[in-house]
Amino acid sequence: MTQRWKLTIEYDGRPFVGWQRQDNGLSVQGCLEEAVRRFSGEAATVHAAGRTDAGVHALAMVASLDLEKQCRPDTVRDALNHHLRPHPVSVLSAEPMAEDFHARFSCRGRSYLYRIVNRRAPLALEAGRAWQVSVPLDAEAMQEAAQRLVGRHDFTSFRASLCQAKDPVKTLDRLDVERVGEEIRVTTAARSFLHHQVRNMVGTLKLVGEGKWAADAVTAALEARDRAKAGPTAPADGLYFTGAWY
Amino acid sequence: MTQRWKLTIEYDGRPFVGWQRQDNGLSVQGCLEEAVRRFSGEAATVHAAGRTDAGVHALAMVASLDLEKQCRPDTVRDALNHHLRPHPVSVLSAEPMAEDFHARFSCRGRSYLYRIVNRRAPLALEAGRAWQVSVPLDAEAMQEAAQRLVGRHDFTSFRASLCQAKDPVKTLDRLDVERVGEEIRVTTAARSFLHHQVRNMVGTLKLVGEGKWAADAVTAALEARDRAKAGPTAPADGLYFTGAWY
Repeated sequence: MTQRWKLTIEYDGRPFVGWQRQDNGLSVQGCLEEAVRRFSGEAATVHAAGRTDAGVHALAMVASLDLEKQCRPDTVRDALNHHLRPHPVSVLSAEPMAEDFHARFSCRGRSYLYRIVNRRAPLALEAGRAWQVSVPLDAEAMQEAAQRLVGRHDFTSFRASLCQAKDPVKTLDRLDVERVGEEIRVTTAARSFLHHQVRNMVGTLKLVGEGKWAADAVTAALEARDRAKAGPTAPADGLYFTGAWY
Repeated sequence: MTQRWKLTIEYDGRPFVGWQRQDNGLSVQGCLEEAVRRFSGEAATVHAAGRTDAGVHALAMVASLDLEKQCRPDTVRDALNHHLRPHPVSVLSAEPMAEDFHARFSCRGRSYLYRIVNRRAPLALEAGRAWQVSVPLDAEAMQEAAQRLVGRHDFTSFRASLCQAKDPVKTLDRLDVERVGEEIRVTTAARSFLHHQVRNMVGTLKLVGEGKWAADAVTAALEARDRAKAGPTAPADGLYFTGAWY
């Protein structure tokens, strides 16, 4: 009898072409599916709540898969972790679920963290894990401007040109900017996001932080519904998928 | 005219044989001295407040060196960082000092952080940057036992057999254990430490955390003045040099 499983997964995005299996390199999905194959001999497909891009990390990605093999939850977690070595992917938990659970289609909300290290010196310990910005950023101004993006809007200006979503209208539940020492943390949540939406919002808020843009310019960029009118895409390094809820 | 400089340095210890220049591989000191040579042409020796072992990290190592070349502090920092690429070593600041300043011999105190991630799943994002301990640890019991080591003691039981210090008597100013979510943070400070002292104290406190040892066993290990009577050496991965004061 098939059992559906919910996995919560941590990964370092640096060595991967992204979540999704691709022909051109190592993917998180591919590593997980290979670990499943080694563990149970099954050719399962692993579905994720968010298909993160190359270099994007996860503290708690949620994924689902079906297994014929009967196991205790701890065994699923430990066996997958054993077969995932040496890839920087770790299964934090495995939970048996009802058969209608689907990590992507059942998902009611997703959250991300974006980390900026705001200092002149390059990153040694956090290289590839945060965006280093040398120019001093005003986090309070960024926080004020961020509120212009919260709510239901057409996010065409913050959407990658390759974005495949049918509808650019999304409801942004939260976009908060907070300074913690030399680090600026951007926390965001929504039912779903457009491709590159978080990185494009962060790249735009950085313009506000360095004083190049006022909050009104963010509103104008949003209303323009034109990708060219918003700021550049922030690098993948600082982005972490932090949670999905159901 | 020679100028003495104080550098504050961050590094990821993973690719290095340690702070100290050695014949058998890449050292932090060697990378810095090579960056100085490329920047100014000078064969300067860089002295550090602490000579960390292979795999040990630094958030704020302090080092000193002499430069003939006349420069502004920001130029020294930026030029060294330019020439340090691609090594994970970053000069956070450079400050001109009086000629009697010496990062090692003038140092009046040093501090370290040791990070334990207390969970079953292996580390993906923090691999090499923390000690993953699967068995649940009681941080309060560790904190209580740690206080047995604070003060002036003969730390022979916590000293590497290769330790070159003349006197095993040291004054430990602080040893605090705190749980923050799944992480246990051990913070310690002293005028100076013996070789492996922090890692040996952490390895011993881990025995207390998992319930194998009571606090009295830590006192007994200390009083035995015998390395074989204390716990094992915790891995380098979790150790960070966090500061030096003068």
